[in-house]
Amino acid sequence: MNWRPAFSDIAHLGHVEVLTPSIAESLRFFTELVGLFEVGREGNSVFLRAWGEYQLFSLQLTESNTTGLGHVAFRAKDNETLAALVKNLESRGITGNWIAGGFGHGPAFRFRSPDGHFIEIYFETERYAAPPYLTTGFKNQPQRRGINGIGPRRLDHINLLSSDVKACRTFYQEFLGLRLTEQIIFDDGSEKGAWLSATNKSYDLALTLDHAGGHGRLHHVTYFVDSREDVLRAADILVEGGIKVETGPHKHNIGQTFFLYFFEPGGNRFELGSGGYLILDPEWKPIQWNEADRAKGQAWGLKTIESFHTYGMPPIEKP
Amino acid sequence: MNWRPAFSDIAHLGHVEVLTPSIAESLRFFTELVGLFEVGREGNSVFLRAWGEYQLFSLQLTESNTTGLGHVAFRAKDNETLAALVKNLESRGITGNWIAGGFGHGPAFRFRSPDGHFIEIYFETERYAAPPYLTTGFKNQPQRRGINGIGPRRLDHINLLSSDVKACRTFYQEFLGLRLTEQIIFDDGSEKGAWLSATNKSYDLALTLDHAGGHGRLHHVTYFVDSREDVLRAADILVEGGIKVETGPHKHNIGQTFFLYFFEPGGNRFELGSGGYLILDPEWKPIQWNEADRAKGQAWGLKTIESFHTYGMPPIEKP
Amino acid sequence: MNWRPAFSDIAHLGHVEVLTPSIAESLRFFTELVGLFEVGREGNSVFLRAWGEYQLFSLQLTESNTTGLGHVAFRAKDNETLAALVKNLESRGITGNWIAGGFGHGPAFRFRSPDGHFIEIYFETERYAAPPYLTTGFKNQPQRRGINGIGPRRLDHINLLSSDVKACRTFYQEFLGLRLTEQIIFDDGSEKGAWLSATNKSYDLALTLDHAGGHGRLHHVTYFVDSREDVLRAADILVEGGIKVETGPHKHNIGQTFFLYFFEPGGNRFELGSGGYLILDPEWKPIQWNEADRAKGQAWGLKTIESFHTYGMPPIEKP
Amino acid sequence: MNWRPAFSDIAHLGHVEVLTPSIAESLRFFTELVGLFEVGREGNSVFLRAWGEYQLFSLQLTESNTTGLGHVAFRAKDNETLAALVKNLESRGITGNWIAGGFGHGPAFRFRSPDGHFIEIYFETERYAAPPYLTTGFKNQPQRRGINGIGPRRLDHINLLSSDVKACRTFYQEFLGLRLTEQIIFDDGSEKGAWLSATNKSYDLALTLDHAGGHGRLHHVTYFVDSREDVLRAADILVEGGIKVETGPHKHNIGQTFFLYFFEPGGNRFELGSGGYLILDPEWKPIQWNEADRAKGQAWGLKTIESFHTYGMPPIEKP
Repeated sequence: MNWRPAFSDIAHLGHVEVLTPSIAESLRFFTELVGLFEVGREGNSVFLRAWGEYQLFSLQLTESNTTGLGHVAFRAKDNETLAALVKNLESRGITGNWIAGGFGHGPAFRFRSPDGHFIEIYFETERYAAPPYLTTGFKNQPQRRGINGIGPRRLDHINLLSSDVKACRTFYQEFLGLRLTEQIIFDDGSEKGAWLSATNKSYDLALTLDHAGGHGRLHHVTYFVDSREDVLRAADILVEGGIKVETGPHKHNIGQTFFLYFFEPGGNRFELGSGGYLILDPEWKPIQWNEADRAKGQAWGLKTIESFHTYGMPPIEKP
Repeated sequence: MNWRPAFSDIAHLGHVEVLTPSIAESLRFFTELVGLFEVGREGNSVFLRAWGEYQLFSLQLTESNTTGLGHVAFRAKDNETLAALVKNLESRGITGNWIAGGFGHGPAFRFRSPDGHFIEIYFETERYAAPPYLTTGFKNQPQRRGINGIGPRRLDHINLLSSDVKACRTFYQEFLGLRLTEQIIFDDGSEKGAWLSATNKSYDLALTLDHAGGHGRLHHVTYFVDSREDVLRAADILVEGGIKVETGPHKHNIGQTFFLYFFEPGGNRFELGSGGYLILDPEWKPIQWNEADRAKGQAWGLKTIESFHTYGMPPIEKP
Repeated sequence: MNWRPAFSDIAHLGHVEVLTPSIAESLRFFTELVGLFEVGREGNSVFLRAWGEYQLFSLQLTESNTTGLGHVAFRAKDNETLAALVKNLESRGITGNWIAGGFGHGPAFRFRSPDGHFIEIYFETERYAAPPYLTTGFKNQPQRRGINGIGPRRLDHINLLSSDVKACRTFYQEFLGLRLTEQIIFDDGSEKGAWLSATNKSYDLALTLDHAGGHGRLHHVTYFVDSREDVLRAADILVEGGIKVETGPHKHNIGQTFFLYFFEPGGNRFELGSGGYLILDPEWKPIQWNEADRAKGQAWGLKTIESFHTYGMPPIEKP
Repeated sequence: MNWRPAFSDIAHLGHVEVLTPSIAESLRFFTELVGLFEVGREGNSVFLRAWGEYQLFSLQLTESNTTGLGHVAFRAKDNETLAALVKNLESRGITGNWIAGGFGHGPAFRFRSPDGHFIEIYFETERYAAPPYLTTGFKNQPQRRGINGIGPRRLDHINLLSSDVKACRTFYQEFLGLRLTEQIIFDDGSEKGAWLSATNKSYDLALTLDHAGGHGRLHHVTYFVDSREDVLRAADILVEGGIKVETGPHKHNIGQTFFLYFFEPGGNRFELGSGGYLILDPEWKPIQWNEADRAKGQAWGLKTIESFHTYGMPPIEKP
């Protein structure tokens, strides 16, 4: 199943479940400082949305004894495509199971990526209906803009650590039809990172090498704000709110996005991003960054911070 | 031929040919104040590009005794799709002719829209190769960022005046596979405007009613700048450069884009835009704006300026 | 040779008392949408501050049966200057009275301007001490940045309607030592507006002609936000919050400030502003704008809105 | 009681002379990439201005066999103050000499600071008169906004390395009447940096410790751009133009300014800055940052780069 040039079988990244050992602090952080909206609770989970999202939610916080990824869900472009994707997975020996329907969406097929991350694909979804105090006259907007805290517009992408970047990105290309847009390949031919897209955005999924040799770990989840000024404003909000900024704000070479990384109170790395470029060319050739490129640091010279290579979620147990 | 949910048969808006009775002044304006780059001349035409575009050019300025649209070109997603599009057009009685290949692109099929605009569809294209003094270390960027003048990143969309908006937008939906994203429908059921997209952008083509009853006329061509600050900076550059701002900067309700309209020295209306939202939902339902919505003005209350409804290119001859 | 503490005899605009017939709605608006902080109540008044202000408060909202200015207060550069200012006022026949000390500040001399506005001048002031949940590690900032709503940094200026602009501005020049920086003078020699400064900012006080022939009326009060992006974000917040934007965002010719005007729920006009230029030249000559200049509209062509000339606070009773 | 023209005895930082061993490259850089305007040449010097400056020039580039400061000039608030300043300097044993008048300004008194930097103070100055192609309808602006390259509005401040920060800052307080606004004092009581102001800006002059034990050396010269977006845009322009960014963009704790440091082709460190806060309080107490504060890095955590402490102009000869 080759990538079909008018975009993938996946419409977009749907939502992310993140585990947190400090759910009360995480929840307070995401609602008060980040400005996400709580839309429901179920079991050990709380569901949150950003103001610009048409779906009910994008972030599921789940109480746990550790950090890391619960699962990541992609929305297929329609039910027929969903069925075809599942058939293809199963025909290639990838087993999974159908979940009857979760909070905010319909039937989902759940399976594990080559690196062990839990992946769900689904099509039927619940659209957000704003309560009266959050309705807006801007008819193309699902609800009133968030006015408290950072106020991101939407979930943007996820970065998954991978023990074998090449094998993993090939999997997402072949089984979800994602398009490879940029990659890091070192002089010895080893692939250190891959960026894939289901849309005109330059990436919706990033895969970066797990230097610690872990499996199924999370690198970060990113929310999008409308302007670089919003990222700068967020930096003040985070620092004054007692949240540790890991690195940034600065501009990525890859994707040209303006970034800010930090750790939410539970210990998971999140990013706020803005800017970047759209890919319009149906014949786009993946951009390759080499070892020398990476040695120069980010777009304006900021060196990649050490913890970026060493800290993943969940942590790897020392023997 | 219904719209197929994984995006259209068209990859994106390709380029626009604009007629000008003052080509020297227009050219100086677009290169010195707007900051486009000249990439070639042929016959009565000069070809220009914005720094972020992968194709050779996006604007063809053609000397003429009037203003208005020469033609607008869309890039099909591949050669098979191009052939299928042409076959479908011809099977429905829409005639056109193949052009062997123009400046910067391969074979194109040229035909007229229901309103008489000249349309071209093509697939093969020439990629821009930057001269040494314009190369960049940012590998995902076709050339060095423009540093003089306004410096837009890329062509964004075109707005064509139409004597029958509904008929025209149905044509673009059926024959180019564009997706209808927003529209203006008045209380009497008449359709005053339609916005269509070939990408995740909320529109690549707009159709608005020609109140003067003209045919084949242009409303405006829009270039995209990276930030709203860039639009504000552009407003100063235009005013100090002696260019008349028609309206803005302000925010559109439709598309949520931040806009600035002005007339280039030849008399054609251009827009600079930034912001807006991406459409990720494969089941997107067109947003409908009614008469009361429109009476409120733009997003923050600015009334639509009279000339917006009366001034089109070319002008209609008074009898 | 020690540093002399002030530019003019006035250090800066201190605070503004605004009357509102809807104090509950006004208060909710200023705290929830604007993001000012309530710091106290006394009598019919509530006191509010912006996060960047070293003084306790800058806005006093007072319940009333009308809109308009309660009083405006300027901080003198020291106690000796305050005494000298009062002596000069009294020696020239301007009577007033000492107020023992109000909420947040020490003794103030209260008098009426030539147009009847109540003015107070004071020196001793109460500095804001942030409660634990609003302290900040940014030592040069009085409290944590406001993260909810619009979040202005500080009070910027006030615009008072005047029945005789020339007489009034001369008064502020002669009795408070303010510097005239810009003015509007029509072809018949009549002065339509004057902008005066106590600082390097291009104005702290504006006087504009009361076309309705009122006395002692308010045109608007302005808060400063850090960026033009903040003004644009505010426009969304206001519109979605049901607040009428009167005009803007746009750029003033005078002062080069980026502006947005709206009416708070009580009916008083407020402005959010950003940008502008600093005056460093000790020999600055007032900039004169004439009738033709004004006919061109604001910096990018926006016409001055009719209500700008007709709506003042309090309204003038129709006979 | 007339307006007294200045804050301190100094109105503002006037201009800076910078030595460069590569004047052709430096000049090309400042005119083409930074977007300063050349206004004259004299001897080995070229004079440059930013578009928002009322004076003729702010930067004098002088060909030399080394880098570093030629001299820094401050404009006194009037001729009487200038005379008083000189008298005070001489009465305290500080000798200097009157220069009859230089390019763009009248008589200046030239002397050396305690650390050996050449300082000039002057009052009479030449105002810039724009040539026809650079005139503007914005009457409060000396010329048309620069539209090429980075386009800073004005010179902002200078940072001088000092072997004894306390002695030096006391000198500028006592002899030029500057106000101490912020300072770095380590746990052992040693003063590592001092920020002084002649205006409502939080600083016009910074003094930081010369760790290499040099004398009379330059740390950097800063130009101001209108927005943080302009700083980010500048970062791209510099990097793509082959200019090394030393550190940033990021936000200073001190002054709250958004910064970007780089080396011009001659080897001198320059900064682009925006934002910051105004000091309105006439009783402002200097903010003290201690060793622990500094260990936290800049506002959002960026560590101060090593070269910031080791690289000064001119370089110190190794014995």
